[in-house]
Amino acid sequence: MRPVYLDNNATTMVAPEVREAILPLLESEYGNPSSMHGLGGNSGRLLSEAREKIAAGLGCSPSEIIFTSCGTEGDNTAIHSAIESQPEKKHIITTRVEHPAVLNVAKHLERKGYDITLLGVDSDGRMDLDQLRRAIRPDTALVSVMYANNESGVISPIEEMVQITKERGVLFHTDAVQAIGKIPIDLKTLPVDYLAMSGHKIHAPKGVGVLFLRRNTPFRPFMLGGHQELGRRGGTENIPGIVGLGVAMDLAVKHIGEENTRVRAMRDRLEKGLMATIPDAMVNGVGAERLPNTLSIAFKYIEGEAMLLLLDQFGICASSGSACTSGSLEPSHVLRAMGVPFTYAHGSLRFSLSVYNTDEDIDLVLKELPPIISRLREFSPFRRGDEGLDWVEDH
Amino acid sequence: MRPVYLDNNATTMVAPEVREAILPLLESEYGNPSSMHGLGGNSGRLLSEAREKIAAGLGCSPSEIIFTSCGTEGDNTAIHSAIESQPEKKHIITTRVEHPAVLNVAKHLERKGYDITLLGVDSDGRMDLDQLRRAIRPDTALVSVMYANNESGVISPIEEMVQITKERGVLFHTDAVQAIGKIPIDLKTLPVDYLAMSGHKIHAPKGVGVLFLRRNTPFRPFMLGGHQELGRRGGTENIPGIVGLGVAMDLAVKHIGEENTRVRAMRDRLEKGLMATIPDAMVNGVGAERLPNTLSIAFKYIEGEAMLLLLDQFGICASSGSACTSGSLEPSHVLRAMGVPFTYAHGSLRFSLSVYNTDEDIDLVLKELPPIISRLREFSPFRRGDEGLDWVEDH
Repeated sequence: MRPVYLDNNATTMVAPEVREAILPLLESEYGNPSSMHGLGGNSGRLLSEAREKIAAGLGCSPSEIIFTSCGTEGDNTAIHSAIESQPEKKHIITTRVEHPAVLNVAKHLERKGYDITLLGVDSDGRMDLDQLRRAIRPDTALVSVMYANNESGVISPIEEMVQITKERGVLFHTDAVQAIGKIPIDLKTLPVDYLAMSGHKIHAPKGVGVLFLRRNTPFRPFMLGGHQELGRRGGTENIPGIVGLGVAMDLAVKHIGEENTRVRAMRDRLEKGLMATIPDAMVNGVGAERLPNTLSIAFKYIEGEAMLLLLDQFGICASSGSACTSGSLEPSHVLRAMGVPFTYAHGSLRFSLSVYNTDEDIDLVLKELPPIISRLREFSPFRRGDEGLDWVEDH
Repeated sequence: MRPVYLDNNATTMVAPEVREAILPLLESEYGNPSSMHGLGGNSGRLLSEAREKIAAGLGCSPSEIIFTSCGTEGDNTAIHSAIESQPEKKHIITTRVEHPAVLNVAKHLERKGYDITLLGVDSDGRMDLDQLRRAIRPDTALVSVMYANNESGVISPIEEMVQITKERGVLFHTDAVQAIGKIPIDLKTLPVDYLAMSGHKIHAPKGVGVLFLRRNTPFRPFMLGGHQELGRRGGTENIPGIVGLGVAMDLAVKHIGEENTRVRAMRDRLEKGLMATIPDAMVNGVGAERLPNTLSIAFKYIEGEAMLLLLDQFGICASSGSACTSGSLEPSHVLRAMGVPFTYAHGSLRFSLSVYNTDEDIDLVLKELPPIISRLREFSPFRRGDEGLDWVEDH
């Protein structure tokens, strides 16, 4: 059974063109770019070419690209860099809906004596610019705001937030892991200091990412070691991953129009179709600007995990909004920050599309999901329970 | 021209069996192991199987394996973990011949107020156990000693050093990047607390490594993010790299006898052949126990880089002992720590073999290198210069 893969915010298929580019690196082209021989020189050239492709895709200079192992490393590095280069500043601003790669670093720093301000969001997941204006202090070391949310797909008002932040002379980092390849980003016109991205969200393999570091932005290496990446990140470069990421970035640029047209149309059809046929449903972030590929939809009275298991029987791969995989039954911190009621938050599903999806994929979900929900609701303990559960918080 | 690859301490060819195991992960098996669907489940199983293979190869439990992006990350994580879990202890012991992934972390910590003791080595690269005994203090947080040196191939007396360290109740880390796959290592009988290894030194691809963390050893995550690796390392797992590393570890175990017999015999023949035909040559670390695959050999009066370029014309890939790739003309810190005289240190070559080398590879070096050296010596400015250069230090 061919999977109907609608979990592209979790990870993506490696694009055929990316795979083709990687194969020689697993065969004859295995040199270390630091080596002084032909085989090493070849790897060095491939590394440079990939760096140029990624710089072109982001609208920056190749020297502003630091290759990392993942989005998480980019986020950790940016925050580390901002605080180590400004040891006198002990305040960091971020948001309640960040990825754990930012939130857990912030929590760690809080235990180390840092003051952390977590900006909230409204019921549609939207951020409040005035809240940011009020939060910035003379001792603010960094503002870190994700470009687009992995669960809700809600896009942050990054341009405005960067402007507000830079006017106050504060460094700005954005976790753009979910935005790259889905909406146009141009670092020539967006003056962020740091930007983290991940390869495996844009059809490159897992294990590679990029930290954009704007020229003249303070930097302190996070991973200390050899002279790689101009001394900014030790460790032998993941050449197969990096070459794959270069090709994936070219493809992302090529497909960006299609994301906003064909992919958006498929997402909209899925959203409208489900809302039309399933009662007691709501779209998370419906009033906000959202990524064209993401639908977070909540069904009252049922559990995300049960829906996922039944969808999987039809080969449909999706995700629940909750942090189920960590073994916790708590609903996701993102949906909680949006104030999604308990009886909805537990029943959230995320469908995240890519250019490799087809209309048939959407047809299948529209056919199979409504009966799954009817069936689950018949067994729902919540359905028979107390509407007061809507008010249970932080259980 | 097929390369005669004798630079296996820099990086290795991906083994055909490793490549075969990786290919499906670049095609249909692209799930995220954290996802709640069949595709994710497949990746989760592959992750577990690889973890079991590596644990079996090292003689530890699968839960003691943390996947990283490289050896450098393992080293950074081990040191970070040791100091963060013992904030009252401000002293670290390591050696002058460590990889930059340890030395540069130590230098960084020194700037942060830590006291660093760097153990020296003798002219054969050997460590002194009494020096370690004297260096350990009540406030020593960690002893970090590489298992085998990447440049000289000299093997450290790790068993004795661990015993001395553990008797004093101090944590012990070893960078085993160069030792794994070349000499037998069994963590059941070697009570180190942390051990770092890298995939691309044992015929897995670049971009993956392992930190062994002994059960009950204090741990603080270095890369903060999601719940991956039992919350010990955030970031989506590099499944292709990890699966490849599992297969590579199986192969390393299978080939360990051949390393000590056939590979050692090739190395010894190369060493004896060069020493017999080239005057004014010396083997670095000749009096010490060395890795069976490594020959570091120094030729008076000439420069390593020139030799490498001329060898490359015959397809022979080797490395100089010096840190040439960083753009510095200083001889390597390892050879300086061994007190190799200036006129030799600059003319050091490292040949590092693998089980994929053949007798014909050795024949070619034995045929081509002696005339290269004769030719270069005719042009050597050192030859015409002052022997007093032997006394130049830290130039």
